[in-house]
Amino acid sequence: MSSTTPPLTRASVVEAHERIKPYIHLTPTLTNTTLSDLASTPQSKDALRGTPWEGQEPAKPRIKLFFKCENFQRIGAFKVRGAFHAVGRLSEGERAKGVVTHSSGNHAQALALAAKTFSIPAHIIMPTISTPSKIAGTRSQGAHIHFSGSTSEEREAVVQKVIRETGATFVPPYDHPNIILGQGTLALELQEQTERLIEGDKRLSVEVGKGGLDAVIAPCGGGGMLSGVATALSGTGIKVFGAEPSFEGADDAKRGVEAGKRIERVKTLTIADGLRTPLGELTWSVISDKEKVHNLYSVTEKNIKDAMRLVLERMKCFVEPSAVVGLATILYNEDFRRLVEKEGGEEGWNIGVAFSGGNTTVEAISKIFAAPEERAERAEGVVGKDGERVAENVAG
Amino acid sequence: MSSTTPPLTRASVVEAHERIKPYIHLTPTLTNTTLSDLASTPQSKDALRGTPWEGQEPAKPRIKLFFKCENFQRIGAFKVRGAFHAVGRLSEGERAKGVVTHSSGNHAQALALAAKTFSIPAHIIMPTISTPSKIAGTRSQGAHIHFSGSTSEEREAVVQKVIRETGATFVPPYDHPNIILGQGTLALELQEQTERLIEGDKRLSVEVGKGGLDAVIAPCGGGGMLSGVATALSGTGIKVFGAEPSFEGADDAKRGVEAGKRIERVKTLTIADGLRTPLGELTWSVISDKEKVHNLYSVTEKNIKDAMRLVLERMKCFVEPSAVVGLATILYNEDFRRLVEKEGGEEGWNIGVAFSGGNTTVEAISKIFAAPEERAERAEGVVGKDGERVAENVAG
Repeated sequence: MSSTTPPLTRASVVEAHERIKPYIHLTPTLTNTTLSDLASTPQSKDALRGTPWEGQEPAKPRIKLFFKCENFQRIGAFKVRGAFHAVGRLSEGERAKGVVTHSSGNHAQALALAAKTFSIPAHIIMPTISTPSKIAGTRSQGAHIHFSGSTSEEREAVVQKVIRETGATFVPPYDHPNIILGQGTLALELQEQTERLIEGDKRLSVEVGKGGLDAVIAPCGGGGMLSGVATALSGTGIKVFGAEPSFEGADDAKRGVEAGKRIERVKTLTIADGLRTPLGELTWSVISDKEKVHNLYSVTEKNIKDAMRLVLERMKCFVEPSAVVGLATILYNEDFRRLVEKEGGEEGWNIGVAFSGGNTTVEAISKIFAAPEERAERAEGVVGKDGERVAENVAG
Repeated sequence: MSSTTPPLTRASVVEAHERIKPYIHLTPTLTNTTLSDLASTPQSKDALRGTPWEGQEPAKPRIKLFFKCENFQRIGAFKVRGAFHAVGRLSEGERAKGVVTHSSGNHAQALALAAKTFSIPAHIIMPTISTPSKIAGTRSQGAHIHFSGSTSEEREAVVQKVIRETGATFVPPYDHPNIILGQGTLALELQEQTERLIEGDKRLSVEVGKGGLDAVIAPCGGGGMLSGVATALSGTGIKVFGAEPSFEGADDAKRGVEAGKRIERVKTLTIADGLRTPLGELTWSVISDKEKVHNLYSVTEKNIKDAMRLVLERMKCFVEPSAVVGLATILYNEDFRRLVEKEGGEEGWNIGVAFSGGNTTVEAISKIFAAPEERAERAEGVVGKDGERVAENVAG
């Protein structure tokens, strides 16, 4: 992308927000009494059986939840924020030559939409083995599809070829300042919407604690959203946490931070298919900074399924599994719950929860919930949201 | 209920709204470009094959949709509106003796919540064969459960017994002015929210047509919501339409109005399980009045499934099948589409769509979408949302 990129500061996120506002939805921040009550109820000792917390007294955190619903965002996910910011910051000359990326998911669709909006070409590199529905979906956004093999080397070769031939600018899915700053804009909205909701409660004489958020938790795959949220909230006093699936080593960010070294390769088929990617260099630098991301937590496939059922059946929000990993942490990770009990005390914590998106299908949900627990843990029944085979994921 | 009940007028709905506002959620009215575009696209001739419209030129209506999302309402359905209105209008003396109803669904939960809020007893008559989860759910709201047989006579006997013993007031699920006026309040909000949304579009220089709604479509089971909406919008010039499933004669209101005589018994296992009930005497009197309800339409089980998939996967709203019968009519009923094409003309119509609720489960949705089309039409695979057997439904 353009060689002049803004620094990773809250001010840059505010600037990014001004730039992309006309193109994105102001998604709602919702509350839900049932879920806040559940989060504030100690888990049963039975629930802790067979976990690292077995035999301990369950934590008693007091929690009020504020859900930022990016499943209602354009293309059904937060990814349009980064894409519109990246395209919006290109010079006229750069823009004319178009943009290119490799992705078979939400980022490809988001970039295609941004390119269409600016009337410039979008080149999307997709593996030949992608499902026809996904190819058709991206093509219907007006993007040019280029096919590649499934390895990162084959993919990269096609990207370079497109750049040579067209002069298009590469827009990576997460590891770039413009993407990170774009994704971070959701945290500005979440912060302001939460304050307004609490202000409204005060007017209705509903008993409220503090006037704003104490913490925000965001899912972490490649780390674009989490880095953006951490950048946006840096210096506000609001603590930022990351959440990952633990299945088959998908908690690469957590393990990397614990070991003090980025994990560059991940091979997992967690049902949270948006979180199968390792961190990039830039997102690692933000997420491993304790001043920016307070801590990382992981949850099981069962935790994710249980949280997803609650969001679907109680909140009536249609979300993808990746979206609920933060909520699953709040509900079921005793380490996190202990922290809130300790730091929140009597007054408790107002926690913002970023729902990343809602791009899944009725069939994918049926499969996830039809799989018996052990099988879900082995994930054989849930190979990608559309049956696509997932090769080893490499940061990029 | 109390012998003094207000007349069925818009003014009474406005009064009901003031009364219940503190107890209900102001649910959002949402728009969705994809669905409005789909509604404005002529159906393919293939889609009309095998329907009454086969061989005709598909209609070309221009439609903008405004969805009133009562799936986000308390207890997950619009029913709390009527319940809070009914309980709120009781005298102190009446209230002290409690309320009683027969229902295994949303009305029972809504009444239990209203009673709990006013700290009065709620007696709920449920068939002995009700699923344990439903019994537990209603009990968890603090209601007293009384069991009865499955026929309306057995049910009625237990209701009378409870009234004799406690002096509780009977609150019927739909066929009472206080219920109808309460349910109608959603139309006031929908009307105002739509006007505000259009006003907002104007400020953003988005091209808009008229300043408000041209029509509202609501699902019709017992007719409480449809009667309420029609009462609320009476005299506004906004046309009101009802939508029903056609499966196994569930379109009793439509057939009754066409024949000029109320149909009193319905026996259907439509997947839209909230709409298996016939009209009551009072709802019939409103719905058969052409000045109030402009027309009624029906849709197939497949239409309902297709519309439900769109709402889940595109709008990301978790809804029950009954909720989408209005949208299914707009998308797939050519008679309705022709009417909009004709009456809306070049400018088109702004149509409000009432989503009744979202009380279903992942498993119920899996079943509905797993069933092959013919089987879905025969409905054997989808016996109630929780496997409960449904006896013949009689108005009451």
